[in-house]
This record gives sequence, structure tokens and C-alpha cells, in this order.
Amino acid sequence: MSASVTPEEVARSISSVAVEILTVEEFISVLKSGRVQAYIGIEPSNILHLGTLVACEPLIRLAKAGFKTIFLLADIHGWLNDKGELEQLKEIAKRNQEFLSKVVKSRGVEDLNVEFVYGSSYQLSEGYVKELMRLAKLVTASEARKAMDMISKKDVMHKVGSEIYALMQCLDIGYLGINVAVGGLDQRRIHVMAREYLRKLGYAKPVAIHTPIILGLDGGAKMSKSLDNAIFLDDGEEEVSRKVFQAFCPEGELDNNPLIMIVERVVFPWLGHFEAGGKIYNDYSDFVQDWRSGVLTAKKLKEGLTEALNGILRRIQTS
Amino acid sequence: MSASVTPEEVARSISSVAVEILTVEEFISVLKSGRVQAYIGIEPSNILHLGTLVACEPLIRLAKAGFKTIFLLADIHGWLNDKGELEQLKEIAKRNQEFLSKVVKSRGVEDLNVEFVYGSSYQLSEGYVKELMRLAKLVTASEARKAMDMISKKDVMHKVGSEIYALMQCLDIGYLGINVAVGGLDQRRIHVMAREYLRKLGYAKPVAIHTPIILGLDGGAKMSKSLDNAIFLDDGEEEVSRKVFQAFCPEGELDNNPLIMIVERVVFPWLGHFEAGGKIYNDYSDFVQDWRSGVLTAKKLKEGLTEALNGILRRIQTS
Repeated sequence: MSASVTPEEVARSISSVAVEILTVEEFISVLKSGRVQAYIGIEPSNILHLGTLVACEPLIRLAKAGFKTIFLLADIHGWLNDKGELEQLKEIAKRNQEFLSKVVKSRGVEDLNVEFVYGSSYQLSEGYVKELMRLAKLVTASEARKAMDMISKKDVMHKVGSEIYALMQCLDIGYLGINVAVGGLDQRRIHVMAREYLRKLGYAKPVAIHTPIILGLDGGAKMSKSLDNAIFLDDGEEEVSRKVFQAFCPEGELDNNPLIMIVERVVFPWLGHFEAGGKIYNDYSDFVQDWRSGVLTAKKLKEGLTEALNGILRRIQTS
Repeated sequence: MSASVTPEEVARSISSVAVEILTVEEFISVLKSGRVQAYIGIEPSNILHLGTLVACEPLIRLAKAGFKTIFLLADIHGWLNDKGELEQLKEIAKRNQEFLSKVVKSRGVEDLNVEFVYGSSYQLSEGYVKELMRLAKLVTASEARKAMDMISKKDVMHKVGSEIYALMQCLDIGYLGINVAVGGLDQRRIHVMAREYLRKLGYAKPVAIHTPIILGLDGGAKMSKSLDNAIFLDDGEEEVSRKVFQAFCPEGELDNNPLIMIVERVVFPWLGHFEAGGKIYNDYSDFVQDWRSGVLTAKKLKEGLTEALNGILRRIQTS
């Protein structure tokens, strides 16, 4: 840990970008011990979008504070989840790693604090499979299914593979020696399972940090490639501008407003401020006041957001 | 295949000790091809009982006819099924192998036709696990659960491990290159699953041969160690005599009569005849006639059965 920040300050900084921490007390105690091994699992995806930035933010802050962090490129998980053939997913994971390296670099994180691990590098090994079977002897099918339902709803005729998926994700945390698991709120049940069962297999009980799920630009479901409602990390300036201006953005409203969520969950964490309508907001609550009162119109918000996002994406893309 | 028997004769001999063959036509066609690889999976058990002889009978006949047969000592399966720790189960499997060798030897089967394979020798390998995952992507949790319900009813809070158990048993058939799967009728759903899904993974569709489930000596559930209603393969003469004379045996009845089932399913297949009440029955139907009519009393049946079983068990034990 860098000498300049205290465990409490790190915890506070991460709380500000999370929706919950299970539990804050445990988190502070792990931070104090100095023996942190944090991780996030990322299923290989053809194009990463803003949701990834939000989910990775706590991990980036931990790495920046000097703690050891792991990005798990979950190629075997993606394969089990029918995202493609394994060799193909390994290639996609490689490209994702290159992009995530840029994300991390653009935040000034030191290389030695970040490790990229491929699921396929250990999840088919005898040692791992045996542990997976030990876990499978404890967890009921119903628990595994419920955990998966939060992650992937499409599997109506729910396959055994999706239960194995949930168990593997749970086991990864123990197997990789993780004591701080980071993920979107959709990973909650998996993490709760991990907190309950890993101890029974002799692993540590991990702290779980959950980030919000970013709404799609249409204000509907979450941001995703398949719904074509996302801003991708490799989008160009005009693309970003077009998407922001077309986005659902009810004037003065905070709830169910994807652009407000992006201001709060991407712009403020990345830049520390937001500039719109000729005004610099150093604090999210000041911004909210102007938005609610109508001082800040949707047009001005969109202009400011386009500029801010393009600044962030350029910073990543050129890192 | 030995030159002295035709495929049709082998099929007929095996039909006589099975309750069903899926399908007889496919079976004859595999026999005619000469490329037979038959198997039975046996969960390591502290003491093997008469039920094992009945389930193994088709495999013994195939081996005797010169075909390649595999006894799979399913230690990993036993472990997943909570029968003990893995190292312990490997030891039990070793003792089971020694006993099964005697069974096979006592029937005059040539060594080179019989192979003993341990599940742990390949079921944790990367190649196998990948195939298992491929299968897990196809089979629904509900199918896997129903297949397991026939094998093991105790698992009320049904675990993911029991679904993996079913999938592994299904995959073993393809992975070991089996084209004739042998097992008790309780394996039916697993075998039907194998016939449906293995082709989708590029394996052959196996023939399935099912043997009857031998009733417990109390006339209740199936013969099992835990219910203390079984004759074990290492029982001594007095033990056998005591058990047979205490057994449930309604005079003149065929249904739900464990001793009649043993005469039909153990004595006739092993000895080719049954001697009781001073008479030698060369045919099961002649025996049935005398039993039904009351010519053969329960006392005489029990005397004859004790002698016959002791003969068979001595033959095995001293092989």
C-alpha cells in the first residue's frame, strides 16, 4: 500500500463507487492486514463498454493504492455460457486484456500491482477440478441455479453447465487466494455463496464489493452489446456524440436516467468533476441540484457528457 | 470372438439374463462387426453382494465369448456420491478389483478379455473435463436429476455433484470407446441419456443392456449392505445358510420372492441347473412348475439354494 493513504481512506474511496460492501468492517480489516488480493472476473467480450469501467473501478482504486489485483479473463466461463468456441474466446480475452491494460495504465496504476490470469490456465487442471467437485458436493442445484439467474436469464431450459459456471466462479475466489471479490450487483448471489461455502472447503471468507449496473442508453435493461444500447470503450468521438444525443434522458429526472448514471458512475470517478453548461461541478450533489432545478438542460448535459466521455475514452485509447 | 459361437447365439445368451436390450438389432450388429467394447461401472463398495453378480452376468458372457470388456472401478463417482474419501475409495476399489478378478476367473474367462479401469485414472484429466463441460452445456439439470433419482434416492436437497455424477457416467461410455453399456435397470435413464447425447458430442451411440434389480432377502427394497438384507460374495457357508433360511419366501409365489429371483438370476446363469428336493431342474420353467404346484416346498427350496449358493461362492472365493 502506498504510504500516503490509510486503510480507512481507501475504504471510503471505494465505498463511494460501490453500492455495497460485504462487509465494510471486514474490508477495513483486510486492508489493514496489508495482505490484499483483489479480483474481478470478466467474460471475454468482443467489445467492452462503459459498464466494464464501472465494475472495474473499485479494483483500479485498490491497484492505485498499491494492492495486488487480478483481472480474471474468464474464457472457460464464456465458453460454458455459449459465448463461442474456446479458442476463439481465448483470442477475444487476449484483446480484452490489451484494452484493460490501457484502462489501468490511463489511470496511472503501476504494472506490478496488476495481474491478468486466464481461466483456461488453471480451470481444467486436476487440482482445480477436484476442488470443484468438493464444492459440488456441498451446494444444492437450486442455489447454483438462483445464482446464475442473476447473471444470465436466457437459459430457460437451464443446463447443468450453468450450475457448473456458478460453482467455478465461486471456487475461483478461493483457488486464486482472493480476499476481496469485485463485481457488478448481478454477481451478488455468487459472492454470497462464496462467502458461505469457501470456508467449508478451507479457504478464506472473501469480502465482496458490488458496483451498480449501468442502464442502457435507451433507459431499458442494462447496457449490453446485444441490445445495442451501449457506449463501447473503442467508440470514436462522433459515435459517442451520436449515442449521447440519441439517448433516453428525461429532463430533470434522476431515476432511470442512463446519462445521469454515467455522469455519476463514470465521469466523476474518472475525472473528479463534470463540466456542463459553462459550469464546473466538483461535486456530484451540486450537479444534481442544477439538473433537478432545470438550470442544467438535457441539451447542455449531453454536450458536457459527450466532451467528458470523449476525453476519458481518448485517454484510454491512446494509453 | 471365439469361433464356436455366432453373434445371434451370444445375443440370445445375453438376452436370457437381461430384462431389456436397447436395442437387440443394434446389439447383433455390433456383435457382427466384431469391434465390441463392453463395460459396467461399479461404485467401490466395502462388500460386493449377489446383485453385483447379476449385473455383471452379461459382461461375463461377452468376455467369455471373446469380446473386450471393461470393469470401471468408479472411485470418483463413489466420492461424489459421498461414499467416503477418495483415497479410501481407491483402496476399496482395489479390493473390489481383486474380488471381481476371482468372479471372472471362476467363470473361465481369459485375462486378456478383461480390463480394470479406475475412474480416477482419467476423470480428472483436462481432456475428460473439457468433454464433461461440453456435455454439461447440452443436458438440462432436470434430465440429470431424474437420471440420478433412479440411482440414489437419498439426496433430498439434491446437490450439483449428483448432476455431475450422472453426466460423468454418461460421458464415460463415450470416452472409453464403449459400444455396449451394461448395468442394472436403475441405470436405464443414464444409458438413455448416453444414447441421446453422446452422438451430439461425436461419440458412438451405445447399446444398453439392463439386468434386473435383485430384491433384498426381506422381500423389501433392493439388496443392499445398508439394509442388511444381502448375501455377500465373501459370506461363509453358515452365514449363507442362516440368511437363506431367514429370508422372506412366500410358499408357491413367484412375485416379490427374493429367493426365487436368486434361483433364476444367479443359480441358473452360473450352474445351468438347480437341484432341490432330490430333483435336478435343467430348466427354470420346470422348477417354476414344481414351486407353484407345491411339489417343491420352501424348506426344500432353501436347502437346495443354500447348497447351490455355497457352491458358487466357494468357486469364486477359491479362484
